[in-house]
Amino acid sequence: MADYRDLDRKVIQLGKQIVRMCTDAGSGHPSSALSLVHIVSALMYRVMRYDPKDPWNNASDRLVLSEGHAVPVIYAAYCDLGGVVGSPEAPSELRFDDAMTLRAADSVLDGHPNPAIGFPFFDSATGSLGQGLSIAAGLAAAARLDGLDRKFYCICGDGEAREGQVAEAADFIVDHKLTGVVAIFNCNGQAQNAYVSPQQSPDAIAAKLLAYGWDVRTIDGHNWEEIFGALTAEIGEKPLAIIARTVKGWGVSALQDENSHGKPLGAEMVEAAVAELDAKAGELGEAEAGASDVRVAQLSAPQPAMRPARGGFTAGALADALKTVGLEKAFEDKILSTRRAYGAALNALGADERIVAMDGDVRNSTFAIFFADNHPQRYFEARIAEQNMVSAAVGLAAAGKVPFVSSFAKFLVRAFDQVEMAAVGSANIKLCGSHAGVSLAADGPSQMGLTDMAFFRSLMRSRRADGAPACRIMLPSDAVSAFKLTELMANIDGMCYMRTHRPDVPFVYDENETFRMGGFKHIVDGEDLVIVTSGYMVHVARRAIEALEEQAGLSAGLIDVYSLPVETDEILRIGDDCRGQILVLEDNYVGGIADEITAAAACSDLGVMVDSLVLRSIPKSARTPDETLALVHLGVPDIVSAAQKMFDQSE
Amino acid sequence: MADYRDLDRKVIQLGKQIVRMCTDAGSGHPSSALSLVHIVSALMYRVMRYDPKDPWNNASDRLVLSEGHAVPVIYAAYCDLGGVVGSPEAPSELRFDDAMTLRAADSVLDGHPNPAIGFPFFDSATGSLGQGLSIAAGLAAAARLDGLDRKFYCICGDGEAREGQVAEAADFIVDHKLTGVVAIFNCNGQAQNAYVSPQQSPDAIAAKLLAYGWDVRTIDGHNWEEIFGALTAEIGEKPLAIIARTVKGWGVSALQDENSHGKPLGAEMVEAAVAELDAKAGELGEAEAGASDVRVAQLSAPQPAMRPARGGFTAGALADALKTVGLEKAFEDKILSTRRAYGAALNALGADERIVAMDGDVRNSTFAIFFADNHPQRYFEARIAEQNMVSAAVGLAAAGKVPFVSSFAKFLVRAFDQVEMAAVGSANIKLCGSHAGVSLAADGPSQMGLTDMAFFRSLMRSRRADGAPACRIMLPSDAVSAFKLTELMANIDGMCYMRTHRPDVPFVYDENETFRMGGFKHIVDGEDLVIVTSGYMVHVARRAIEALEEQAGLSAGLIDVYSLPVETDEILRIGDDCRGQILVLEDNYVGGIADEITAAAACSDLGVMVDSLVLRSIPKSARTPDETLALVHLGVPDIVSAAQKMFDQSE
Repeated sequence: MADYRDLDRKVIQLGKQIVRMCTDAGSGHPSSALSLVHIVSALMYRVMRYDPKDPWNNASDRLVLSEGHAVPVIYAAYCDLGGVVGSPEAPSELRFDDAMTLRAADSVLDGHPNPAIGFPFFDSATGSLGQGLSIAAGLAAAARLDGLDRKFYCICGDGEAREGQVAEAADFIVDHKLTGVVAIFNCNGQAQNAYVSPQQSPDAIAAKLLAYGWDVRTIDGHNWEEIFGALTAEIGEKPLAIIARTVKGWGVSALQDENSHGKPLGAEMVEAAVAELDAKAGELGEAEAGASDVRVAQLSAPQPAMRPARGGFTAGALADALKTVGLEKAFEDKILSTRRAYGAALNALGADERIVAMDGDVRNSTFAIFFADNHPQRYFEARIAEQNMVSAAVGLAAAGKVPFVSSFAKFLVRAFDQVEMAAVGSANIKLCGSHAGVSLAADGPSQMGLTDMAFFRSLMRSRRADGAPACRIMLPSDAVSAFKLTELMANIDGMCYMRTHRPDVPFVYDENETFRMGGFKHIVDGEDLVIVTSGYMVHVARRAIEALEEQAGLSAGLIDVYSLPVETDEILRIGDDCRGQILVLEDNYVGGIADEITAAAACSDLGVMVDSLVLRSIPKSARTPDETLALVHLGVPDIVSAAQKMFDQSE
Repeated sequence: MADYRDLDRKVIQLGKQIVRMCTDAGSGHPSSALSLVHIVSALMYRVMRYDPKDPWNNASDRLVLSEGHAVPVIYAAYCDLGGVVGSPEAPSELRFDDAMTLRAADSVLDGHPNPAIGFPFFDSATGSLGQGLSIAAGLAAAARLDGLDRKFYCICGDGEAREGQVAEAADFIVDHKLTGVVAIFNCNGQAQNAYVSPQQSPDAIAAKLLAYGWDVRTIDGHNWEEIFGALTAEIGEKPLAIIARTVKGWGVSALQDENSHGKPLGAEMVEAAVAELDAKAGELGEAEAGASDVRVAQLSAPQPAMRPARGGFTAGALADALKTVGLEKAFEDKILSTRRAYGAALNALGADERIVAMDGDVRNSTFAIFFADNHPQRYFEARIAEQNMVSAAVGLAAAGKVPFVSSFAKFLVRAFDQVEMAAVGSANIKLCGSHAGVSLAADGPSQMGLTDMAFFRSLMRSRRADGAPACRIMLPSDAVSAFKLTELMANIDGMCYMRTHRPDVPFVYDENETFRMGGFKHIVDGEDLVIVTSGYMVHVARRAIEALEEQAGLSAGLIDVYSLPVETDEILRIGDDCRGQILVLEDNYVGGIADEITAAAACSDLGVMVDSLVLRSIPKSARTPDETLALVHLGVPDIVSAAQKMFDQSE
């Protein structure tokens, strides 16, 4: 039998630190952390091939803490190991007692894991439950592309295993044979407000995973032999899940009852808890209490360091890219849908090995199919499971890939929580929502992206720790802008969201037009008012401008806001030159461009009037885009009448 | 062997209609519909106990079409049955050829199922995949509460079974023994862009469901004996799943290849398809082609009609409700968190049997626990699976219950797609997101509701088919408003979302204060500017107003926007009286109250200046709310300086 005395000492030492740091912080989840103290110690001190002094090494094994609230155990161990935090440019080494800064305003030891604020041991932000296994899957997919032998240990809670995304990830990992993932289910039997359901018992979780096609090993999560037996098991054709029976609040009886989730001990109880852990040390035999200098030897040396390169992507010329996918005729005719142009750009960008793509069973609608057909090894079909898709993309991005993720804009709503978590962790993912707005027409509101602008704008207006917007939004109106903006997305460091549309539309721009973040195009000059819009509505607006001229003799200008954030001051200035009148058009619910412009107008001195036609009712099916636009009062006659009313009121 | 000649004739007749109606509409999913033609015929003509002339009967069996795109088969059958559509006040009977109005602008036969536009055969809007089984679960839960023997047949696609929500529903149904649900998996082997994964083969789906604790029967979905054997099987302790092997595009070879999803036949191909179906009829023996007057006898009579009552809910007096849950001291001290007041109100409302509640493992944080403890039979613990929770609430609401659904506001983001679908279907659900904004502090951004205002406002500004807002938003600042607004939510017909907060705060209002939709409270008079805010920020604003008076001699007013939509014109008028200066405060990302006010200001003649302090960076942990507010520039000093700057600029 192997000697685990060093590790026994370690868990006592870490256990005491966990209790202290949470009490000192006044919050945190010591009971969850204690249930993992053996497993995490086994991983971080012995099994994982990594160097705590180089957390940016993209060749090392990684740990994904899906149940992010258990993070104090990781912080305690990482501080003990002298792990490095900060940025590669400004690294700093933690010391044992830095764990006591948990949750402080100036500490990188956040309440839940987050690499974006300077804790690079983690690849992604977690804490919203059920996302870790997908992230680990993405990391493993990237490692395979890079030909790297890496392991990704993902710790999930038992209560957390109820999240449907875990089932999605289990399928995805089997589909793509991502055996680099080792899933560890921490079955401490308690969730926040109650014992877990029998549906999440160790036996139930094991039975389910077997049905999903996994290998399963059930262990005592506080028994070293069993832990190391499982963690060092040979991995076969199937991915491995370790079902670990653990004790919530291990070693501290005051943290073991049903009501102990997410509650630190009162200061007056810490001494007794420490004494109990010391007594536990005594029981364990050789273990000595308080030995803070214990060093545990890793089983294998860390991998040589590797850093992924960034930027420098090109999609080449539009004509070439369209020809490659059989769309030369569209280029000649200068008519193409934005979704097809996106697909052509993505396919062209795929010449660079760092570009990867995912889609959720609609690649023949989003036109990710061009990439899938030409770069099959870098295309990961996610099937009808959008949550896993977005989180897996976060994993791919963390390993240095640039993942493009597409689905119907409506179906990406399914993953808004995952998108928000990606933003929290500054994940470099690119999202493309097709069939945005109402121009999809006949399929009705269950297939239309309508809340997307409000949601993504709320992220777009928020800044990451490094000051960049948490999200950029791309709003192409034609094939040229869709193509160029797809290329731009690849070269931006950070999350981007592009809206594409179903209908074929004429080119608005010359193929050599350039596009940049913040910019817009003033594509029609006008005198009496200026219409501000984007995407498919640019084409509707053009028809409305003609009708305004014909029917009312009004001269309306047109601005194409092809991306957000946009230089609103410039738009207001143009509006000021057009009798101070701006009419914004959007084929989505409230919360997009109109709000951007009105927010700017409200604190501007120019006194520009801003009116808007935005989708203000839940649409229904109609057989053509024009019929749908008429139903929701966004058709050409509606625009004409709104513009005329604005003009009349200003007279 | 039973005689199925009538049904054989029926499927041919319906098959031909499916082909024709999709071709005529120019879009739709005939291949999916044809794969279900036997199962749907068996259900709608024979097995279901219902009356097509009374689709509002809340005692009848129901069909939930989770794979909403297959709806042409339902429309064809319902039209053939002379089913009733419209509203109970204005019912109208369909005729066979009304199926040809599929997807037309003025038809109730929308692209995907939606009761809100007048197709009451369905209980909810579907089409965003994976939600039906949860909806059926909610319907079954309501039926059990009502003591009604009802069956809920839910048809899911095989590709759709990949959605994690299906796994969540499978757990939920077992947890709550909702054996009124019969799940039917339509295994036609094809999704949109490819054959389904082996993970969604009939065998794999069966193995998984067995592991989830279901009974499983696998059948040939085009064999009457097997279909009726399964549909009329005795249900035991476990819920029943029927795994039906089917043929996509049954009967029409042109619709059977891998590329036929979501595509109608060209007009020139219809004749051949009809001939093929006629030939199929010949093969079946007795069946006669074109027999449009075939009538199939139901196995059982429909249940007597039942209509749930609406409205008339009361929570009683605040003092009493707080006392009931042991909070009399809080009432005396006039200090209580909004989340506790919500819980007390919900518990008091629970005196009415129509009120039901759900929570996702955090009832001791949201304080749904008061209801759970006192009305356990009407409390449905959803565990850590928010998507299923929201869709199950849709089912409960469809059966006449008034479900209150609570979780952390952040965790409800997980169900935004389900929320949006609930809005599409005008579901009468009440959502409460606790720990909204940044006042949660130490737990960090993975636990804070920050994108919620943008999302729910985008729904709030959209109108349902009946003209009402698709969502109302409740923003209580204290226990009194939280209590009264919870009562108001119960009495509103339609979706409501309430934000509550973690910290205890002093009462702002007298216990007899009244609240109404559209209203706001002008709680502090001021002369130099007016601050507009809600929720926890009301308390921060009060401190800022004191500091402004002390430090700068400025007199600032305060408006508490306790709900949205709000009468913005009135707020602008008050701003006009305060030197035309409004400062909006929000502890969420862009997209909430500030945008409401600026949108109103931008098309107002008053020339009021609107500035705002809104969360413009991704927060991190800090140990107290004030520390967090300081990190995100929303603290008292930030408000003072913003107000002062506004004032200085106006001088």
